[in-house]
Amino acid sequence: MAVNCPQPAGLLPVRGIRIATMSAAIKSTDRDDLAVLLLAPETKASGVFTRSHFKAAPVQLCEQHLAAGEPIGALVINSGNANAATGEPGLSDARTICDAVAQQFAVTGAVLPFSTGVIGERLPVAKITAALATGEAHESGAAWLAAAQAIMTTDTVPKAVSATVTVAGESVSITGIAKGSGMIRPDMATMLSYLACDAKVAQPLLDRLCAELADASFNRITVDGDTSTNDSFVLLATGQADHVEINTVADAAYESLAAGLKSVAIELAQRIVRDAEGATKFVTITTTGGRSAEDCLAVCYTIAESPLVKTALFAADANWGRLCMAIGRAKATVDSSKVNLHIGEHCIARNGLVDEAYDEAIATAIMQQDEIAITCDLGLGAAEETVWTCDLSYDYVRINAEYRT
Amino acid sequence: MAVNCPQPAGLLPVRGIRIATMSAAIKSTDRDDLAVLLLAPETKASGVFTRSHFKAAPVQLCEQHLAAGEPIGALVINSGNANAATGEPGLSDARTICDAVAQQFAVTGAVLPFSTGVIGERLPVAKITAALATGEAHESGAAWLAAAQAIMTTDTVPKAVSATVTVAGESVSITGIAKGSGMIRPDMATMLSYLACDAKVAQPLLDRLCAELADASFNRITVDGDTSTNDSFVLLATGQADHVEINTVADAAYESLAAGLKSVAIELAQRIVRDAEGATKFVTITTTGGRSAEDCLAVCYTIAESPLVKTALFAADANWGRLCMAIGRAKATVDSSKVNLHIGEHCIARNGLVDEAYDEAIATAIMQQDEIAITCDLGLGAAEETVWTCDLSYDYVRINAEYRT
Repeated sequence: MAVNCPQPAGLLPVRGIRIATMSAAIKSTDRDDLAVLLLAPETKASGVFTRSHFKAAPVQLCEQHLAAGEPIGALVINSGNANAATGEPGLSDARTICDAVAQQFAVTGAVLPFSTGVIGERLPVAKITAALATGEAHESGAAWLAAAQAIMTTDTVPKAVSATVTVAGESVSITGIAKGSGMIRPDMATMLSYLACDAKVAQPLLDRLCAELADASFNRITVDGDTSTNDSFVLLATGQADHVEINTVADAAYESLAAGLKSVAIELAQRIVRDAEGATKFVTITTTGGRSAEDCLAVCYTIAESPLVKTALFAADANWGRLCMAIGRAKATVDSSKVNLHIGEHCIARNGLVDEAYDEAIATAIMQQDEIAITCDLGLGAAEETVWTCDLSYDYVRINAEYRT
Repeated sequence: MAVNCPQPAGLLPVRGIRIATMSAAIKSTDRDDLAVLLLAPETKASGVFTRSHFKAAPVQLCEQHLAAGEPIGALVINSGNANAATGEPGLSDARTICDAVAQQFAVTGAVLPFSTGVIGERLPVAKITAALATGEAHESGAAWLAAAQAIMTTDTVPKAVSATVTVAGESVSITGIAKGSGMIRPDMATMLSYLACDAKVAQPLLDRLCAELADASFNRITVDGDTSTNDSFVLLATGQADHVEINTVADAAYESLAAGLKSVAIELAQRIVRDAEGATKFVTITTTGGRSAEDCLAVCYTIAESPLVKTALFAADANWGRLCMAIGRAKATVDSSKVNLHIGEHCIARNGLVDEAYDEAIATAIMQQDEIAITCDLGLGAAEETVWTCDLSYDYVRINAEYRT
């Protein structure tokens, strides 16, 4: 059902990162569900995490390690179980797994744990620690693909993107992976995503970049408005590209690297929406003319998360009254008599009521495409924001009604 | 598909209110879609309305008349077309219809217009004014039922409830009707509801009572989180019950009347949820132990509107991790280590993690019932709130994908 979500191709290794994947048979036995990323000692790591009140155990541990400024030696990620709503036992389980990773792979820095899957059940710790011995670590594009596959849950397509940017005359490799398909309304980052480059980036700059990248990509998507307990986005800079060292925003190389990372992060975020549970449409919602970015985002998200808009999108029904309804309930400054609405290039409403040249046949033809752009101009200011989402189909209900069966 | 939503029975006339219904063939030709309520001159009216930025034309006119303190002589309600997002022409259409009602039925006070149905299309004014001549007004329970039927859109069951309360030794009749099935997340009142009694109530007290009733009933339900452009709740007191005159909250009769009205308003609100689009479960969500009523409502609504909770309810899946997820993203003060969760009487989580006595078989048996209570105790304070909602089924998607076809 994925909407134009490409299979990963041309993945690049990132110097300084070796990856092992294994099967711990957490939920199913016929696939890898465990990945370990081993980081060169020079690596700097930064992360942003879910703001849920029910932060999963691994998220709590990640935040502690990063806040303490400890060097990070490895990441361990499992799918099939989120280790969320598991209390103190869940923290202990995650620590046991991290210790086993450190021992198995002779890791010196801290090990960051990540989990995704069903909420409220204990991790099968013994299965996971036993599986660790079966993996072999490689620095290759194929290993990144294997990791992207190992972290999938209801995803139907693994999500992995690479790019090369020339920074200070040297080639820097960027590779990122992500997973996520439902429970997608990141409030800091997406379900799980790891983005790495081999440049050397100073820690404060990496932290700033990590937050900016999350905001421009994973914090601009929604599938169902539901925020995960395990959202994690980690940015890694391994420092292996010999002459590329970036210490401040003023460094000439900063813009090039930031742009390369941003393009990969946005592509990963969009692929999460393209592969969203039951999605048949990829929808870009832009609000212009707002008093503030917050107002524009409120309008974008209210449209994007309205079940009535989403079912109209599924039906390819140009029922634009539902867009007015959604804009009408947005927590934003809106003057309905100034609102202009477009579907694709076609103007449907001007100053809050149907445009004289509106043609339902044209609007319907646009709605039947699998990529749809909706633009709402509030006519009140200069702010502008974009959010990506999908429709609400029978299959979303089916997938989530059957999730645990 | 309605969940235990009874057909109206034992409806009482309200002295001072005559009702006529007609067919204007606005959307379909085989049913009445127009109702006129004619009010005795002594009648006091109060209303609360949607807070949408896209307030429909009739809502704007109602608010003007009520704010001006004009005596209200009649209400005219059509289904099949919401007269929303129609700008100045929509206001003019509504005024034309009100004028026709005044002339046809010799109304002296102001006429309040109400519309419900598709958004963004002009009303068929000529059809509606022509239909007005075909109706005959009656003061009867049967006429209330006919009105409840005439205002239906995707409702499958007409919603009408009566009660009698003894106030100051005299019997006061209360009858209310409501419509609404989708686009239900009232932000002031529900789609459309009219609640009448024949007591005499002073205007300031009626206004206060109207807001309190809406808050206790229609402002406590959600189907899909989508707020209508036409939400209207009108409270009428015809002043025909000879000895019942209520001027202040301190009047002995106030509590009796308020309680009677409240029970009818809550019953109507619950029936909207029972007859919600595609509903297979009627769900009562209570949050206790909150720091404030706002916090409790935020938690209730976040659970009630989570697509992942709603699909789990549809599947009768005791996937309580999704409740934690939803509570986790609520805009409220929450300490996950203090949260207790119950499904029905069964404790599923204590202090944020699974209860030692949790038994999935028991929880699943509860989830298979068609009426389910979910209770979340935040353990932080004394506030408590309840919201009523339903599940998200294939039929919700079908009904809303097919709405305009």
